Amino acid sequence: MTPSTTATTLSSTDRSTPGRTKHRTLFDRAALYDVLDAGLLCHLGLVLDGSPVVLPTGYGRDGDTLYLHGSTGARSLRAAADGIDVCVTVTHLDGIVYARSLNHHSMNYRSAVVHGRARPVTEREEKLHGLRAVTEHMAPGSWEHARGINTKEYAAVSVLALPLHEASVKVRAEGPNDDAEDVEANAAWAGVLPIRQVFGTPEPAADLATDLPIPEHVAARTAQASTGPRTSSR
Amino acid sequence: MTPSTTATTLSSTDRSTPGRTKHRTLFDRAALYDVLDAGLLCHLGLVLDGSPVVLPTGYGRDGDTLYLHGSTGARSLRAAADGIDVCVTVTHLDGIVYARSLNHHSMNYRSAVVHGRARPVTEREEKLHGLRAVTEHMAPGSWEHARGINTKEYAAVSVLALPLHEASVKVRAEGPNDDAEDVEANAAWAGVLPIRQVFGTPEPAADLATDLPIPEHVAARTAQASTGPRTSSR
Repeated sequence: MTPSTTATTLSSTDRSTPGRTKHRTLFDRAALYDVLDAGLLCHLGLVLDGSPVVLPTGYGRDGDTLYLHGSTGARSLRAAADGIDVCVTVTHLDGIVYARSLNHHSMNYRSAVVHGRARPVTEREEKLHGLRAVTEHMAPGSWEHARGINTKEYAAVSVLALPLHEASVKVRAEGPNDDAEDVEANAAWAGVLPIRQVFGTPEPAADLATDLPIPEHVAARTAQASTGPRTSSR
Repeated sequence: MTPSTTATTLSSTDRSTPGRTKHRTLFDRAALYDVLDAGLLCHLGLVLDGSPVVLPTGYGRDGDTLYLHGSTGARSLRAAADGIDVCVTVTHLDGIVYARSLNHHSMNYRSAVVHGRARPVTEREEKLHGLRAVTEHMAPGSWEHARGINTKEYAAVSVLALPLHEASVKVRAEGPNDDAEDVEANAAWAGVLPIRQVFGTPEPAADLATDLPIPEHVAARTAQASTGPRTSSR
């Protein structure tokens, strides 16, 4: 699935180059992978009848390919499968930045914005590969544990592949940037209130037989703060 | 700010009516307020040079108006201020749904999708009102606590207002919907792994004077699980 030549830096076309806050923009591929791999949901943007539509959906990554999946009946995926431009954004909110001034209030975050043309995946081996990438991203271990996809289910799902060629990553992971006069005045508190996403205790389905314990691939996630930031917030 | 006539149900134009999963779609305004008010970040979608762009940003709500703000230099906000269509989506991820079959794996979530044309807010009183709505949404209590906006800062920020007229809300808050044969077979675990967003311990800025304690409006948030789901996950 990985293209034979993989650039280690990200492209910087006009639309993937932020016009401001350049100092927050990272252009290495490892940073892109980090943000994508730490997320669970992306926001898929496309143009339908001339208007922008932004929908939350799951995804998976294999090398430099991002896979999306959905029902063959979903209008947004049908449109994207026709080969129109999409924008996929993954954002982690890591903290609220309280500054001495209202003007310097901000948020700490990591975000990846990917632009490109999604291609429908129809070849059987790659389609199963894409479904596995999406499933294992959302629920690692389920591909082996759960009942596999039958012929009817296979036909009812569509998979899209988006190349990770044109993308940008932005990270803010620091304290407030107050003006010197406000620091000097010492009239208001300043700092960061960290935010992270945590897994709770697994809740067995109401109709689950009592002899099935919570499997390790599910239970292990509760112990992790797997979607938290990897960088300090100050 | 509130229009004189406020519909209690949301509009259902073609683009705001999901083509599938109708049973997950709510059309009352209270559900829209709940999803928007519980969020911190939205994903703003717009069309730039014919391509979709999706960017994370803060927001605030007052009645049936959603306020967005940003630098006057931000290309995305400049474009939106020209009166083009935007789509604003707020999503809460509430859990991973493990089913007996791969096909029924899913996520529990609450999402609001708002379509409309954003209008630039230039009148001074409303612009300050919008900035207050955005600030107090992100950092309740800061409008009173922090140093206010000066003339230069006021000029450098732009505020957009988006009417909450055309929107849809979707909620999935339940266990897996497995096929009867898979429930019967009892061959795989099924249930929900809950997810929530939590605030950590406030971290004072490195250059903060030691005589300034963490104010109550910041400290109180750590005790709340304020962005968690309000509905049961099963």
